Amino acid sequence: MTKIDDLDTPCVVIDLARVEANLRRVQEHASANGYRLRPHIKTHKLPRFAKRALELGAIGITVQKLGEAEVMADAGLGDVFLPYNIIGEKKLSRLRALNEKITLSLTADSPDTVAGYAATFADPGARPLTVLIECDTGGARCGVQSPAQALALARQIVMSPGLRFGGLMSYPPRGRFAEADRWLADAKAMLEAAGIEVPVITSGNSPDIWHTGDTVVTERRPGTYIYFDRSQVDFGVATYADCALTVLTTVVSRPTATRIVIDAGSKSLSSDLLNQTTYGAVLGHEDITVTSLSEEHGVIELKEPADEPRVGDRIRIIPNHACVVSNLFDTVQLLNVDGTVESEPVAARGRVD
Amino acid sequence: MTKIDDLDTPCVVIDLARVEANLRRVQEHASANGYRLRPHIKTHKLPRFAKRALELGAIGITVQKLGEAEVMADAGLGDVFLPYNIIGEKKLSRLRALNEKITLSLTADSPDTVAGYAATFADPGARPLTVLIECDTGGARCGVQSPAQALALARQIVMSPGLRFGGLMSYPPRGRFAEADRWLADAKAMLEAAGIEVPVITSGNSPDIWHTGDTVVTERRPGTYIYFDRSQVDFGVATYADCALTVLTTVVSRPTATRIVIDAGSKSLSSDLLNQTTYGAVLGHEDITVTSLSEEHGVIELKEPADEPRVGDRIRIIPNHACVVSNLFDTVQLLNVDGTVESEPVAARGRVD
Repeated sequence: MTKIDDLDTPCVVIDLARVEANLRRVQEHASANGYRLRPHIKTHKLPRFAKRALELGAIGITVQKLGEAEVMADAGLGDVFLPYNIIGEKKLSRLRALNEKITLSLTADSPDTVAGYAATFADPGARPLTVLIECDTGGARCGVQSPAQALALARQIVMSPGLRFGGLMSYPPRGRFAEADRWLADAKAMLEAAGIEVPVITSGNSPDIWHTGDTVVTERRPGTYIYFDRSQVDFGVATYADCALTVLTTVVSRPTATRIVIDAGSKSLSSDLLNQTTYGAVLGHEDITVTSLSEEHGVIELKEPADEPRVGDRIRIIPNHACVVSNLFDTVQLLNVDGTVESEPVAARGRVD
Repeated sequence: MTKIDDLDTPCVVIDLARVEANLRRVQEHASANGYRLRPHIKTHKLPRFAKRALELGAIGITVQKLGEAEVMADAGLGDVFLPYNIIGEKKLSRLRALNEKITLSLTADSPDTVAGYAATFADPGARPLTVLIECDTGGARCGVQSPAQALALARQIVMSPGLRFGGLMSYPPRGRFAEADRWLADAKAMLEAAGIEVPVITSGNSPDIWHTGDTVVTERRPGTYIYFDRSQVDFGVATYADCALTVLTTVVSRPTATRIVIDAGSKSLSSDLLNQTTYGAVLGHEDITVTSLSEEHGVIELKEPADEPRVGDRIRIIPNHACVVSNLFDTVQLLNVDGTVESEPVAARGRVD
């Protein structure tokens, strides 16, 4: 029976009781507020947690890359939403194969992208592909820029033999859920006035997970809520007691009375700042943070001199951004309530394409 | 015969002619200036390039983690320097096994670390371990804080039966090679006055690769010079024409006339800024840069509206920091002068411990 003390460092430790509590609490919020939950697996990349969310009431999963969708399909996940423009012959061929195996939906935000899907799925032998339209409601990333553009693209999808129009999708910036909702309501009204039904409107994210109130949104796709992290705590969405993912590290140097060097650098914690000015908080002493990183070292500068921790002591770090940490480790360690840990390969790690 | 156009994106493309030119040029500088070269493999993590540097005259390699040393030893690299404090029973046991197989040297910066080595290698059956002292010459990471501390630690090493004192090591901050050199010269003088010979003094990095002049430094450990990257160009060490590693991406969205979205985000480029304010430069148009990143999207905001590039077009990005990109991909694509590419697994990727 492996315990935390037996683990070599740096490694990722995931508290299963906190995972379960986070999954349940958000599913209960969804059920109580009348939206469907389609959790984003980018945060954990583990089929096991994707399946657990489904058992608790989620209607399917969200992935961010085709390669992630393939891993999840192979692991038995049968309903996958891929909010990404899939471009190029190789990926379109993989997409067609995947769409034969599972219930798949994805997005487009341009006539070129829709044309690629239409050409791939025009063959009457192919199972039709469900395409939602990505809407830029303020995030300044992908997405059509106006409801009128959404209408034009919806018409193109509806008129393409191998495609089914699936609805509208947005990834609103933090704190702008309501603004996104107004945008999506306008687009929905415009499409319905043109006789196009809008089966699904999907929005939402972990920072706005507790948003309530009247909305046209039917589905939400939060990811980080399964683990939470330092940035989510800073955003006021969770507390440190909710954070399920930590990086277990060893103090490898105490060069001065105020400097601690740990064996986790940007290769373990990533250099994501996400509105923070430092790179992670010390579990149990969250006012103490990782002040600088190089690839294999993290430096903690204390405000006051201290003898502790000593070389060889262990410290757990709550990272700024849990999702990117999952992508940096081949395996993670799952911590049970009895203090034992089990190793789990990160099945969808590194699936960049 | 695979060509660049056949590759799916995002992927890492490494120009072999530039790699060869960079390796040769720095080796020639080392030979002309009387220092030995021990290149750091953290940048490429490929046994193939480690071996090529040796063929050109390098005396061995540098790695940053024990796991990297193990991968390189398994691949036939026989002389490895690991400038890291190795702490804890599990790692010390791996260290002892590795030291039986190859010529290994590593560092310590505290009595506790040396005590761990001494206990592990006290057994007369063990091959002695070569230990250098890490010196903090201004980098504010690991390292003893003064030549007097270096002397005390050298005495501890010399008095430990299973250990051999290997010399002094520093990783000076960019632009402070000469300052580090004065520190190391003082330490060398103090140790020699105490009757302790200093066989090796290792310093240096890619940003100061062209430093010349009188020095006590006998070895240098640059890493990034094999590929160079945007930050090295910004530091004035190389030009964009020297940069060997790019990330090949596809334009997946053109939401506005000034916004380009590519399929490489922080999972491909990393969020390392390294003194930059944006996340990578477009090959051939290096004034155009990646202005923001999320995990799977990179956003380029143009100063002027433009029709090109279009959805489906491909763009190569020179990342801010090449080393961390190597760690994000399971395989890289090696580009030959005839335009063909070959896939190479990144053997030491993800070796965090």
